Amino acid sequence: MQRKKKQYAVGVDFGGTFVKMALVNDRGQILVREQFATHQAATQLAWTEAVAEAVERMLAQRGLRPSALAGVGVGVPGFVDFDRGFIYNLTNVPGWTAVPLAAKLKRRLGLPAFVDNDANLMALGEVAFGGGKNLQHAVFLTLGTGVGGGLVLDGRLYRGAFSMAGELGHISIERNGVVSPQGRGGLEQYIGNRRIVDYTLALLAAGRTTTLLQLCDGDRGQITPELIARAAKQGDKLSLEIFDYIADCLATALASVTYLLQPEAFIIGGGVAQSGAILFVPLRRHLRERLSPYFARLIKVLPAKLGNDAGAVGGAALALQAAP
Amino acid sequence: MQRKKKQYAVGVDFGGTFVKMALVNDRGQILVREQFATHQAATQLAWTEAVAEAVERMLAQRGLRPSALAGVGVGVPGFVDFDRGFIYNLTNVPGWTAVPLAAKLKRRLGLPAFVDNDANLMALGEVAFGGGKNLQHAVFLTLGTGVGGGLVLDGRLYRGAFSMAGELGHISIERNGVVSPQGRGGLEQYIGNRRIVDYTLALLAAGRTTTLLQLCDGDRGQITPELIARAAKQGDKLSLEIFDYIADCLATALASVTYLLQPEAFIIGGGVAQSGAILFVPLRRHLRERLSPYFARLIKVLPAKLGNDAGAVGGAALALQAAP
Repeated sequence: MQRKKKQYAVGVDFGGTFVKMALVNDRGQILVREQFATHQAATQLAWTEAVAEAVERMLAQRGLRPSALAGVGVGVPGFVDFDRGFIYNLTNVPGWTAVPLAAKLKRRLGLPAFVDNDANLMALGEVAFGGGKNLQHAVFLTLGTGVGGGLVLDGRLYRGAFSMAGELGHISIERNGVVSPQGRGGLEQYIGNRRIVDYTLALLAAGRTTTLLQLCDGDRGQITPELIARAAKQGDKLSLEIFDYIADCLATALASVTYLLQPEAFIIGGGVAQSGAILFVPLRRHLRERLSPYFARLIKVLPAKLGNDAGAVGGAALALQAAP
Repeated sequence: MQRKKKQYAVGVDFGGTFVKMALVNDRGQILVREQFATHQAATQLAWTEAVAEAVERMLAQRGLRPSALAGVGVGVPGFVDFDRGFIYNLTNVPGWTAVPLAAKLKRRLGLPAFVDNDANLMALGEVAFGGGKNLQHAVFLTLGTGVGGGLVLDGRLYRGAFSMAGELGHISIERNGVVSPQGRGGLEQYIGNRRIVDYTLALLAAGRTTTLLQLCDGDRGQITPELIARAAKQGDKLSLEIFDYIADCLATALASVTYLLQPEAFIIGGGVAQSGAILFVPLRRHLRERLSPYFARLIKVLPAKLGNDAGAVGGAALALQAAP
């Protein structure tokens, strides 16, 4: 007799500020949410205990036994070895160097546990249940302070030789471009939130006129990508020009990825992507111009759909996918 | 009783000038070769017949029955649909539009037959039996008139959504770079053979001194990447500078690919790669400089080993890999 595939899993989005958790079913629906402040569980032991107790509460709330769960999938902001469920280091969370987290969770919960990079799980979440549903080959990007990404190839996360593939923010768009610790001309050095603001401030310093200054009451320190998007939507010429520049930088990297991987679609999430048509219209145009007609016709650029839930839903998707 | 895995296959490298074939064993050794001029088999029927007869001669020479073969793998210079074994179009061979070649060969030979892009099969050949032996994740590049490539991910060729992944020659290295039908700033527009020569001629026109002019007896039309490599090996400063430039352009693209795919190695073949240390030493240095220390330490840049046999050996490797 074939055992029935498990229908539930828990996803954990381990952020620098909050740990967000969700009990998710096999259609990607969130049934129960839990969260706690990261600083409230400052040791590894306290963290594992807080997660385990939240899992138990979520199960109890739906009247489910632990055996109903395919497992727990955790997305973390840093370097992991997926195969070993091991965290090398978390970028902005102290005290998480060299941690066999999957083993700890598995021991505490008695359930399969998985640990992956957060951008990878957002990618998987979007492809399993969000903006990229039913795609076999998709590239996910998240635009924010940094530019992260994840690759779903042949229906599964592709992690590369050392769990670190999909670093789209470091794709070079200019051979002699901005130098950073990651190399030269990396996309993130042009369209990371801070870089967009710097670019804008430079244009203002050069004397360009814009309604942006009214929107921020003359306080240039208040300028954010969100504010620029708002001005652009109101027709501000400079702000539209800035979004055209962001779109072209992004299109340069996406054209390279298209030739390399030939995905069916790019799925784009994160703060800057919330701008909607202001970003997507010039992005699609620039990408088309940067591809031969054959590729230009086939590739799709889609908005992410899961928003802040992508990481937790992706964690659950990973556990569901891995279940026997 | 388990059936024994087949030990032989035939690879076919369908070039614009010659069709080269090889009977290959499961260790990648070429046992028999055959070839014919492409123009001597000008129709699809004549071509299929010529290949089938060559297969039969090769088998006879080794005293093997057709049933000893896992199948026949054909690499073609153009666009294919791998899953259907279908040729859309061949770039430089007239009369090969919309051809179900795998089905034709299978019918004529009574053996499994596969059709793929030639660069893909070179990639597979190098990873199965050449410069990338035993690698699970490797990116192959061939440097010539154009820059082609192929991706081996998780031990198998990755073809993308429409059989066309791995087009490394079109990765953009300059956002505002050279415009071509494929986009803007494509690697091939900088380091394709003709572009290397153009770059050199421009430096000569600008009055740079070099021993190149002696090597070509003052006839600038004789300058080729090979001649530049020869001058570089003799210590010619300008030629060394040109190879440094080629290496840096290449490193820009390879750094992007490293961040995206995190392969274990790049395997580099084709004419320009024959230059050896003149190319590989600056290439490894520039790539290291363009990567964070973690990635720089892990990635390898290896010369291809199979030379002109890569396509035929890769065709055989494909058939061996696909065999039940």
